[in-house]
Amino acid sequence: MREALPSLVELYADPDGQVRHAALLAAAACPVTPVTREVLAAMAETVTPQGVLGVAPLLDVDLGTALRGRPRLVVVLEAAADPGNTGTVVRTADAAGADAVVLTEGSTDPHGGKCVRASAGSLWHLPVVLGPSVTDTVAALHAAGLTVLATSGSVGADDLDALLDTGALTGPTAWLLGNEAAGLSGTALALADRTVRIPVHGRAESLNLATAAAVCLYASARAQRRRAGPQQVTDRGRPEAATGV
Amino acid sequence: MREALPSLVELYADPDGQVRHAALLAAAACPVTPVTREVLAAMAETVTPQGVLGVAPLLDVDLGTALRGRPRLVVVLEAAADPGNTGTVVRTADAAGADAVVLTEGSTDPHGGKCVRASAGSLWHLPVVLGPSVTDTVAALHAAGLTVLATSGSVGADDLDALLDTGALTGPTAWLLGNEAAGLSGTALALADRTVRIPVHGRAESLNLATAAAVCLYASARAQRRRAGPQQVTDRGRPEAATGV
Repeated sequence: MREALPSLVELYADPDGQVRHAALLAAAACPVTPVTREVLAAMAETVTPQGVLGVAPLLDVDLGTALRGRPRLVVVLEAAADPGNTGTVVRTADAAGADAVVLTEGSTDPHGGKCVRASAGSLWHLPVVLGPSVTDTVAALHAAGLTVLATSGSVGADDLDALLDTGALTGPTAWLLGNEAAGLSGTALALADRTVRIPVHGRAESLNLATAAAVCLYASARAQRRRAGPQQVTDRGRPEAATGV
Repeated sequence: MREALPSLVELYADPDGQVRHAALLAAAACPVTPVTREVLAAMAETVTPQGVLGVAPLLDVDLGTALRGRPRLVVVLEAAADPGNTGTVVRTADAAGADAVVLTEGSTDPHGGKCVRASAGSLWHLPVVLGPSVTDTVAALHAAGLTVLATSGSVGADDLDALLDTGALTGPTAWLLGNEAAGLSGTALALADRTVRIPVHGRAESLNLATAAAVCLYASARAQRRRAGPQQVTDRGRPEAATGV
């Protein structure tokens, strides 16, 4: 809730929430409406609401607006089905300093509670584009000067570590990741500039979608920043840029 | 199921599962018992079981056995609460070539269905130690020659990218990650050789536990393998070592 606070347009608090979250409510820039516990419970979809409930605007940004400027890191989920994964990818993209997230047509609705909670506020920290076709998305990414990399388990794909070794990840990059069960479509794989596989050193068959995104996005963030030096790639966020788990 | 097949001690299949998963059942080394759909539904905890159900042994390996040999990469979850996160971390540890996972006392039971499914078979691919104290765990890690790194959001922690730049991650390493809400305990932070923070370049407050583990484990795997060369660090798994999402 704290992370989403600057994005909220309305807040509701029951008597318990008014006491427990007094500092948060005092810091809010939007109107705060006191409600009974019963009203809050009816509004919330969780079994044990936290006593406060915020309303944020629907995500509404088009591809052209999201890719305006000179984006250096973008993540595209093609028809991602699991809202928890989607929210976690948005949170990771935010942490890695990505400029935008695109959820192509057929993706899960990110406004659902599971996705919103998994994103920990990041849905309102960077542009999240909903519903374009993968064809339109890749065309827009190319027009914005991004190299488009598709994750793949195929033996013919380029190894992520090898790409890091050759400096292939230092430029502006968009990562395409596919549906949890089906992977990327043939269309997406064909439109990408390269297919890339994350090395598996043990006996796992593959990685979870959100962890695969984390490995790729942090590999790109590190490659871009090492090349540019810390002064040239500006962090969008907090000056100390520190975090943990 | 396919990933867990070599670990199973019993398999049950309803008529539908016997047809749909005939190849999997034929490949099983353990006994296969035909059952009715009603019996399988009563045995399974999912709402829509897949027609086959496997029984795997309980995890039962102690710290000394898990750290025997010369472990190079170990992950420790201190009192991790979310079974989905725990299973995903085990899967990621397996993929990154880790030698063992330790779930300290107070951690969620990894035998639950959510954790088993999130691990995608990896719970039976590498030693998973249950329930030691964090003090005993760190002592055993040190005795096994591992440097113990604790993830932290603290500004005083070492930056992960800086550690990679200085080659501090090329040696045998254990990563300590804390509870989703509370982070690591003071005891764990005090016992670790260093505290390390994952850089956050955007506006996210922090990373999800499983994605943080992915970033740390893949950073270590890459640093260790670049130093050793591909011949010297042997993969435990499949020769092609390829994967995707």
